[in-house]
Amino acid sequence: MDIKEKTNTGIIDKVLISRTFKCLQDDICSEIEVCDGKEIFKEEIWTRDEGGGGSTRIIQNGKIIEKGGVNFSEVYGPLSDKMADVLQVNRGGTFYATGVSVIMHPGSPMVPIIHMNVRYFEVSNGEKWFGGGIDLTPIYIDGRQAKMFHQTLKSLCDQHHPSYYPAFKKWADDYFYIKHRNETRGVGGIFFDRLGITEEFSLEDRFSFVNGIGEAFPRIYTTLINQNRHVPYGEAELKWQRVRRGRYVEFNLVYDRGTKFGLDSGGRIESIFMSLPPEVSWTYNFQPRPNSKEAETMAMLKKDIDWINH
Amino acid sequence: MDIKEKTNTGIIDKVLISRTFKCLQDDICSEIEVCDGKEIFKEEIWTRDEGGGGSTRIIQNGKIIEKGGVNFSEVYGPLSDKMADVLQVNRGGTFYATGVSVIMHPGSPMVPIIHMNVRYFEVSNGEKWFGGGIDLTPIYIDGRQAKMFHQTLKSLCDQHHPSYYPAFKKWADDYFYIKHRNETRGVGGIFFDRLGITEEFSLEDRFSFVNGIGEAFPRIYTTLINQNRHVPYGEAELKWQRVRRGRYVEFNLVYDRGTKFGLDSGGRIESIFMSLPPEVSWTYNFQPRPNSKEAETMAMLKKDIDWINH
Repeated sequence: MDIKEKTNTGIIDKVLISRTFKCLQDDICSEIEVCDGKEIFKEEIWTRDEGGGGSTRIIQNGKIIEKGGVNFSEVYGPLSDKMADVLQVNRGGTFYATGVSVIMHPGSPMVPIIHMNVRYFEVSNGEKWFGGGIDLTPIYIDGRQAKMFHQTLKSLCDQHHPSYYPAFKKWADDYFYIKHRNETRGVGGIFFDRLGITEEFSLEDRFSFVNGIGEAFPRIYTTLINQNRHVPYGEAELKWQRVRRGRYVEFNLVYDRGTKFGLDSGGRIESIFMSLPPEVSWTYNFQPRPNSKEAETMAMLKKDIDWINH
Repeated sequence: MDIKEKTNTGIIDKVLISRTFKCLQDDICSEIEVCDGKEIFKEEIWTRDEGGGGSTRIIQNGKIIEKGGVNFSEVYGPLSDKMADVLQVNRGGTFYATGVSVIMHPGSPMVPIIHMNVRYFEVSNGEKWFGGGIDLTPIYIDGRQAKMFHQTLKSLCDQHHPSYYPAFKKWADDYFYIKHRNETRGVGGIFFDRLGITEEFSLEDRFSFVNGIGEAFPRIYTTLINQNRHVPYGEAELKWQRVRRGRYVEFNLVYDRGTKFGLDSGGRIESIFMSLPPEVSWTYNFQPRPNSKEAETMAMLKKDIDWINH
């Protein structure tokens, strides 16, 4: 939807942005429910003592989604020193943050895990910016599907600026990286932060881009689900899935800035940890057999792969 | 064993300390193997590019121990700035570190998880100190067993100094604490760091205390195993075990300094993560039923419980 249609005043402010994000949450939940066909999201509304709150919507034990969450939040209040340091802004004053964050852990190891987030920040000195991203974590990497995923993201980016896809694809490679394993989390995607107002980009441009990502998300993911939902699997694939989910936990607890920000800002712990997968295992020194499907996936968990021309 | 018997020169130095720690590893593995009665430890020797190495011994799928590790290491070399900051010493120069670290994840939810660590550090400016601790994480807390556990630790401490147990018990409460959950990891135990040479304590005194902890460990844990190994359990207890193991992962990845030091010093990742439990789950907002055994345990996951007089 054209961003201008969202407002009859022409003013894009935090109220409009947050309301739009809330609508994204509704749309995403509806489309996932239709695709899953069995379970629906359960909602919990929460408030934050220092200001604001949100809605956590969780789906569990669906036909497709074993555990998934679509979180909307709008929080504000005094900026603590710790939050200021994490956000890399001057200490003092107040902040405002709103966003939607999605994570889906499918039951089938043949359907990839996905994560999407869009967010908007303001601090009282006048700085305002968007951040977000979308990244895909297949348990078994399918090069053709990774290519389509990246092609779709590139098209979305190119509608706004030719520099977006190359820059944000690289940012995702660097961000969704498990340093202690020397592995990427999956096939990457796009990641961006601090998209503020510049001579080149208005707040409207930035918002339009970020909203476009959110609107495209359900189509992207339901396509991937439908491509893989009928692929058969057995105990070996489920074991590999639990190992890969362990890496997902390692990333989220050791590196993820969103998780850190949530823990530091006194966020609601169950909403923050909705991102953690349902059943996980750590086997000592698990190594895939040479030339196996698992080894093939391991070999592709690398930065700087040009998926579109792979 | 009297520490003096360990040396015919009367000199306690890093070589003697490290050799003694290596013997601790052997003793602990033998006693756990006898108690388990099914599986034995498999050893991997590793070296570190910058200097030193170690031996990781892992037992998996035993009769009692589902996954356990007894790690010995002796590492040294240039002190990186990151390591200096973690150790809170001046930057520059070299370091030496040796230690044994043990973690046991039993298959039965009725047998508690245990962790024990003894370690010795030297930096090239002359500072040298011991650290370590032992703490117990029952899936279901049994007040009587927690009392015996703490009573044993107190007796060990009291042989060396009356201030040790109260100080180190409190240190464990503060250290093994999952801030974002407002829960302790288990019933605590003792934790200590920076036990250096002072007017009151010689290096021999400190070493004798730390070695005593290591020697007592197998007796403490095999007693706990034998008290609980025949207690029946079912699917409900296993589910609760997987939830509690999730908390263990959260502690180790978000707060544990040993894990952080290992990741920062380029330690061997599989040796560091031997501490992570085998099968784990995160269920959204899992809450024990009121008045259940699980709720009873939750209510005891608090700091500053006087277990001995509980």
